[in-house]
Amino acid sequence: MTGLLPDRDPRIPTRIADSMHLPGRWDAGQWSAELAEIRRWLAGCGRPAHAEVRRVGLDHLDGWYRDPGTGDIRHRSGKFFSISGLAVDIPGGPVEHWHQPIIIQPEIGILGILVKEFDGVLHCLMQAKIEPGNENGLQLSPTVQATRSNYTRVHGGKPVPYLEHFVDTTGSGIIVDVRQSEQGSWFHRKRNRNMVVEVTGDVEAEDGFRWMTLGEIHRLLAVDDLVNMDARTVLSCLPFAGLDLDRIHRRSGDDLHTALLRSCSEESGSLHPLSAVLSWITERRTRTEITTTLVPLDSIRGWRRGPAGITHESGLFFDLMGVDVTTGGREVGHWTQPMLEPHGTGVVAFLVREIGGVLHLLVRARVEPGFVDVVELAPTVQCTPENYDCLPPAARPPFLDEVLLAGPRRTRFATALSEEGGRFYHARNSYRIVETDLDPGDEPADFRWLTVRQLIELLRHSHYVNVQARTMIACLHGMLAGLPS
Amino acid sequence: MTGLLPDRDPRIPTRIADSMHLPGRWDAGQWSAELAEIRRWLAGCGRPAHAEVRRVGLDHLDGWYRDPGTGDIRHRSGKFFSISGLAVDIPGGPVEHWHQPIIIQPEIGILGILVKEFDGVLHCLMQAKIEPGNENGLQLSPTVQATRSNYTRVHGGKPVPYLEHFVDTTGSGIIVDVRQSEQGSWFHRKRNRNMVVEVTGDVEAEDGFRWMTLGEIHRLLAVDDLVNMDARTVLSCLPFAGLDLDRIHRRSGDDLHTALLRSCSEESGSLHPLSAVLSWITERRTRTEITTTLVPLDSIRGWRRGPAGITHESGLFFDLMGVDVTTGGREVGHWTQPMLEPHGTGVVAFLVREIGGVLHLLVRARVEPGFVDVVELAPTVQCTPENYDCLPPAARPPFLDEVLLAGPRRTRFATALSEEGGRFYHARNSYRIVETDLDPGDEPADFRWLTVRQLIELLRHSHYVNVQARTMIACLHGMLAGLPS
Repeated sequence: MTGLLPDRDPRIPTRIADSMHLPGRWDAGQWSAELAEIRRWLAGCGRPAHAEVRRVGLDHLDGWYRDPGTGDIRHRSGKFFSISGLAVDIPGGPVEHWHQPIIIQPEIGILGILVKEFDGVLHCLMQAKIEPGNENGLQLSPTVQATRSNYTRVHGGKPVPYLEHFVDTTGSGIIVDVRQSEQGSWFHRKRNRNMVVEVTGDVEAEDGFRWMTLGEIHRLLAVDDLVNMDARTVLSCLPFAGLDLDRIHRRSGDDLHTALLRSCSEESGSLHPLSAVLSWITERRTRTEITTTLVPLDSIRGWRRGPAGITHESGLFFDLMGVDVTTGGREVGHWTQPMLEPHGTGVVAFLVREIGGVLHLLVRARVEPGFVDVVELAPTVQCTPENYDCLPPAARPPFLDEVLLAGPRRTRFATALSEEGGRFYHARNSYRIVETDLDPGDEPADFRWLTVRQLIELLRHSHYVNVQARTMIACLHGMLAGLPS
Repeated sequence: MTGLLPDRDPRIPTRIADSMHLPGRWDAGQWSAELAEIRRWLAGCGRPAHAEVRRVGLDHLDGWYRDPGTGDIRHRSGKFFSISGLAVDIPGGPVEHWHQPIIIQPEIGILGILVKEFDGVLHCLMQAKIEPGNENGLQLSPTVQATRSNYTRVHGGKPVPYLEHFVDTTGSGIIVDVRQSEQGSWFHRKRNRNMVVEVTGDVEAEDGFRWMTLGEIHRLLAVDDLVNMDARTVLSCLPFAGLDLDRIHRRSGDDLHTALLRSCSEESGSLHPLSAVLSWITERRTRTEITTTLVPLDSIRGWRRGPAGITHESGLFFDLMGVDVTTGGREVGHWTQPMLEPHGTGVVAFLVREIGGVLHLLVRARVEPGFVDVVELAPTVQCTPENYDCLPPAARPPFLDEVLLAGPRRTRFATALSEEGGRFYHARNSYRIVETDLDPGDEPADFRWLTVRQLIELLRHSHYVNVQARTMIACLHGMLAGLPS
C-alpha cells in the first residue's frame, strides 16, 4: 500500500528522548557551568529588555475604559481582552453559588516553539522574555507568544519575530498543534494554540533568542521562576511517550525513575484502560450541573471597587489592578493594562505511586467556571490554601494535607513557577510531585489513577488536561532526564 | 506488571464483527424472510403504539408559552427545550450574516443500547418506537432515549424501561460512552450521551423490544426510514476497527468491499497521519471566525410569524410548527409540542475512493452555527439542494453535482433515512456513498481524505464527527457485512 502513512511518526519520541540527553554533556559539574552560562545569557538579554512596572489605578489606564453600562473594563480597540463579571451556580458543590470577575479573551493566540536539528539533535528556539507580571524579570519563553491582536498588529508595534513559521507551515514538520485551555478560574473559555514546528532551512537566533536542547530546558524547570507558563504548556504537548525509551534514558537505579520510564512507555498497561478513563470523564461532564452567566462587572456581589482596583471583601482570592509598563526589548516600549493579582502562593501537586511497577498519577476531574467543557483533568491538589479560611470545611481540597505534610523524602519535585506574566501579576505556584502509598483501589468519584502515557495521549486533543496539570507533565518529562545532582 | 490493562479490549472489535455474521444466517433468501418477520414484528408493535399527530398553531400548545419579552417559545416547567433566535456572523463565508430560529436543549440526554451475549454472540436490545415526526410511524430505536426531563419525570409519565442500566453501570461492561453533537444547523450546542452497555445477567425483552444481532440491524440500514437517528448515532460509536477483521468478514470479491475492510483495519496506513488530521482540525477551528449570538425569536430578520408557525420569507429552509400527539404505547398518552419541519429532502453523501488499496472518505471540516467547537467533520456533501436557489452561486456546496450526477454504478449506497422524530417533523435525508476518481492530491482547504479507522478513532471523543457523518459511518459498517442480494 504505497504512499500511506502510519498515524504517528515513531521516530519523534526517540528524537525527543535524544534531545533530552546530549551525549556526554551532563557529567561531573557540567550542569552547574551550563546553568551559570544560561543565567549570564539571560542577564545579558535583560539589559536592553529591562522593564519598569508601576501600579496604577484601574480607572487610569491609557486606551482602556470602564463601560458605562456594566462597569466592564475594555480596550478602546475592542481587542486584547476585557474583564467582566461571572455568576457561577454548581448545585451540590461545596460552594453552590458565587460571583467573581473574569478575564474574557476569545481570540485564540499562538504559543509556538520552533525546533531544528543541529548535529542530529533537536534544538528549541527559546526566547528570553520579560512580562510585566514576572516577579523576577526575564523568563525562558517559547519562540512566539502571539495573540491575534499581536499578529494583526492592533497595537501598532514591531512584527513578532518568527511568527511566519507558525502562520504558514507549508514545508515544515508539525510536531504539536492543539488548542489548550488556560486558567479556568480566571479566564472565560480562553484557549491558545500550542505548536511545535520543525524547520530544516537556516534560521538564525536573533538577539534575545537561543537554540537549546530539550535536556537543557527541562533541567531549568527545576529552577524557580525560570521557564514561563507558555513554554511549559507547549513542552507538555510533546508526544514523548514511545517504545524503547529506556534504551535512551539511562536508568538512575531509582525506583521512581524506573516506574516513571515505564509510565511513559507505549508498552505498559495501566490501572484503567483509556476507554474507562474517557467514560469517567463523560460521566463527570454529564453529571456535573454547572451554570455560568456573564454579568456586569459592577453587579458582582462580594467584591469592592476602590481607586486602586477591585478586591474581594474577604481580602482573599485575587485583586484586579492596573500596571504602567516601560520596557526596552519588547514589541512596544510603553503601555498600561489591567492585571489580575492573586493573593498567596498556590500549591499544585500530583500524588504519585507505582502500581504494578508503573508510575500512576492521582488525577482530579476538576470543575473550573471558565472551562469550555465542564471539567478538565487537573493535578491531585490545586489551590491557594489561605482561600479556604473563609469557606466551609467541606470545601477544603481533598489530599491537601497529604501534600503539605509530606516530608522532603516523599516530595520528589518542588519548584515555584510563575503563571502567565502578561495577565497575572506575581502569580506563583509551588509545583510538587509527592509519593504516596494510598490504596489505589479506593478512588473518590472525581479522582482516578492515570499513567503519564495516558495523559500524553489525551494531550493530542483539546479540553482534557488543564494548564496546571500540563506544567506538571513537563516537570515529569524533565525528571526522565534525571535531575542534576 | 500484574493487574494492569491495555488501553482497549482487543476482543471487542472481534465480538462486534462476530455479531455482524451470525454463521449460516444470511444465505439464499433467508434475509428476505428475516426482513419480513421484522416488519411483522414492527407492525405488531404498532397496534398498541399507534399515534395520531395533528398540526396545531404554535400559539395553541398546552404547557408551552410565548415569552412576552422575546417571543421565545418555552415549556412552563422550564424543562424539555426552548426555541430562540440566533444571529450568525461568519466573515468571509459565502453568506456572512444571517438570523434563524434555533432549538435550545442544554440538558444532556442518554441514547443507550443494552447488549448481551446469547450463544456467544452479542445482541442489541432494540425498541420499536414511535415519534411524532416520523413519516411512517414506528422505527427501530435504541433501548433508551431519555432526556434528563424524561428520566427525572418532569412530564409525570411512566418510568423509562431499562434506564437504570445506563444510570448505574456498576458491574456492567461499557463499550461506548461519549457525548456527541446533533444537528448544528437546528440545535444550539445540543449533545447527547451515546452509550453501549453490556450486561451479563438476565434481561427480558419487554413488549416492543427485541434482541437483534448487529448484522440484522445494519442490514436494516439499507431500508428507507427504518433505523432511527438515535440508533444510528449510537451504532456509529462502536469501536469496530480492529485487527484480522478480514478473517471474520468474508470478502465479497468486490474491490470496494476489500478496500473498505482495509479501511477498518488497525494495520492499514492512511493518506494523512492522524496527527496531521488533528492539526488540520486545529487550523480550521482557529482560522474560522464565527460569532453566534442568541437573540429574541421575535427579533430575527427574514422570518415571519403567522398563526400556523414561523417561516422564512423565501419559503425555504424550515418552518416551526406545532403538533398535537395522541399515542398508546409511549410514556404519556397525549401531548403537544413545537417541531421543526424542514423543506425538501436533504442530500448527505461521502465521496469515496481507494488510495493505496485502502478506502478513503472525503471529509469536510464543516461550520454549523450550533456546534460547541466551530467545526466538526461532516460528509463531503450535506445540504438541501433547493435552499441554494436563493443564495449566491458561491454558496453552492462543492461536489454536490458530482454526487447528484453519479449513476447507479458509482452510487454504492443510497437510502432515505429520517432525522430525530422527537424534534423534527418529516425530516429526511438521502444518504449516499458515491465512488469517485478525484485526484487525492488536490484537496480544498476544508476537505481531507480520511480512512474509516481514523473516524472511528475520533469518535472516541466528543465534537469531532457530526451526526450526519455518524449515520454514514454506521452505513459503512453495515456494508462490511455485505448488503443483502
